[in-house]
Amino acid sequence: MSDSLTVQNLGEQGLLKRVQSFCPSTVVGDDAAVLPTESGMLLVVTSDVLVDRVHFSNQTTPPESVGWRSAAANLSDLAAMGASPLGITVGLGLPGEVLVSWVEDLYRGITGCLQKYGTVIVGGDLCRSPVITVAITAFGQVDPTRVIRRATAQPGDAILVTGFHGSSRAGLELLLHPELGQELSQDDRISLIQAHQYPNPRLDILPSLPETRISGMDSSDGLADAIVQICRASGVGARLDRQKIPIHPALKRWASSEKAMKWALYGGEDFELVLCLQRSAAQKLVERLGGAAAIVGTITSDSDIRVIDFTQETPDEILTLEQGFQHFSSD
Amino acid sequence: MSDSLTVQNLGEQGLLKRVQSFCPSTVVGDDAAVLPTESGMLLVVTSDVLVDRVHFSNQTTPPESVGWRSAAANLSDLAAMGASPLGITVGLGLPGEVLVSWVEDLYRGITGCLQKYGTVIVGGDLCRSPVITVAITAFGQVDPTRVIRRATAQPGDAILVTGFHGSSRAGLELLLHPELGQELSQDDRISLIQAHQYPNPRLDILPSLPETRISGMDSSDGLADAIVQICRASGVGARLDRQKIPIHPALKRWASSEKAMKWALYGGEDFELVLCLQRSAAQKLVERLGGAAAIVGTITSDSDIRVIDFTQETPDEILTLEQGFQHFSSD
Repeated sequence: MSDSLTVQNLGEQGLLKRVQSFCPSTVVGDDAAVLPTESGMLLVVTSDVLVDRVHFSNQTTPPESVGWRSAAANLSDLAAMGASPLGITVGLGLPGEVLVSWVEDLYRGITGCLQKYGTVIVGGDLCRSPVITVAITAFGQVDPTRVIRRATAQPGDAILVTGFHGSSRAGLELLLHPELGQELSQDDRISLIQAHQYPNPRLDILPSLPETRISGMDSSDGLADAIVQICRASGVGARLDRQKIPIHPALKRWASSEKAMKWALYGGEDFELVLCLQRSAAQKLVERLGGAAAIVGTITSDSDIRVIDFTQETPDEILTLEQGFQHFSSD
Repeated sequence: MSDSLTVQNLGEQGLLKRVQSFCPSTVVGDDAAVLPTESGMLLVVTSDVLVDRVHFSNQTTPPESVGWRSAAANLSDLAAMGASPLGITVGLGLPGEVLVSWVEDLYRGITGCLQKYGTVIVGGDLCRSPVITVAITAFGQVDPTRVIRRATAQPGDAILVTGFHGSSRAGLELLLHPELGQELSQDDRISLIQAHQYPNPRLDILPSLPETRISGMDSSDGLADAIVQICRASGVGARLDRQKIPIHPALKRWASSEKAMKWALYGGEDFELVLCLQRSAAQKLVERLGGAAAIVGTITSDSDIRVIDFTQETPDEILTLEQGFQHFSSD
């Protein structure tokens, strides 16, 4: 009976669809909402709500890291739209017994991340809540000709990722199971944990982007999810070259290639950008970005998304949305 | 020991001060943050986090009303700055067992309120949480010459309120204690309950405001709190005429004048505006607004805020911030 349908029964995607029916269709579908302003610039707005023991825990993230990650996730959504940040608001729900030092460390983390990208907290709200809740809204601006959207990828486009994938998930594993990874050097261990606790949204690359059509989003919910979302929104397929997906040397040394690839595709929270653009422009961009940036595949006119192992060591993998996160599932 | 200091020990005002040290001083101190944009218009941003059983309850507010009130509170903060809304984002934390119909009614309430003021939901976030949490960020724009701030009131200014005070608190009392108010007519009862469940932020009056210096804020935390905040920020005092404070006829009929005045001053959530401007401009504005708008007092160069009963039935009352809400108190 529909009257007794719960949020958990319906699942996140189903609930999202129902809720989107209350929003103008022009503003949903990307990492952030885009609104015209009188200046001709687009105002870009994105929100995240993070809840203690759902999105973070004392075991894996000290308060400074909770703050940094919350800010980074929202700045990454701005980067995904090609937008420069104007500021963020921080709404905080707190149980009375939380230590003031915890709250100050949280803010230290938030402002640490913001400072790195030249932006600030411009407002917010404090309230009592039975569970620590961090609600961040970030807003930025972008020239309408430079906005990055999901729905504009075209067959033939190269698929470019701006950096390593899987590191954040590997860092989480080390934090959850401190007995693991004893064979890792101290530096390798720290690299992976840092990737989880203090990720870097890729606002830094915006000035390097060419002035051509670029489609894309960030990989906050995993590289696989990002590619599926772009393909769905653009009505295209894709082929990925398994060997080209950039994986941090520390992760390569530590995990089996199968596990490393699973984390790279489905781990999430690497906060890199996944961009689709003409191959020649993509090649130049990879050179300009350096680091771990790489072309990992091609947009196709197929109806599926295949991860191909050209060494033929593993069979082709078909990506579906269901392999991504399901935030409302009971496990 | 400062290391073991909790949020509850420190209290909301104390925590707010510590947290504000992480924000640029230019953007805090008003109902909303104000940021310059390239167009010359100011971007105004405000956030609220509302938590089940802290800020709302099934007993007093059905989900549609929770949604309406959440939107109204944020739009009221925009109105308090003189800003027209551009849109809002809605971040929602939900336990899995919440009914989908509850969520849809919440959104119906939000969009019902937004529609009335010609604005929309532009984005948001859904996530799992052990407690229903509604985090709304509203943003709007205002011409820099028309922005309303707290800190610019001057001795001699008239203090104008745009409508009735105390009605929302009276409606809450009727909802909490359905056995009360049996002597009220059905219409009176509905008026007060409506004032609590479906308040109207005063964006409607912005076009009527004169192009002169106006200082002010909204009365969401109570009329007394609004006047104290304006006086503190402006470094001025005030005298209020107890008899001039507009109280709904239904409330006058129902409650003792003492109780009605207490609710008018400290009840909160009436979402009217409290404006300070030159007396002649204030008088014209009262005529233009009609309804329950009234001049209730005068800004002075005194160091206190006195509520004076010129009929001498009650002694003068001195307003302090402590009489307002203390969100983190344990009761």
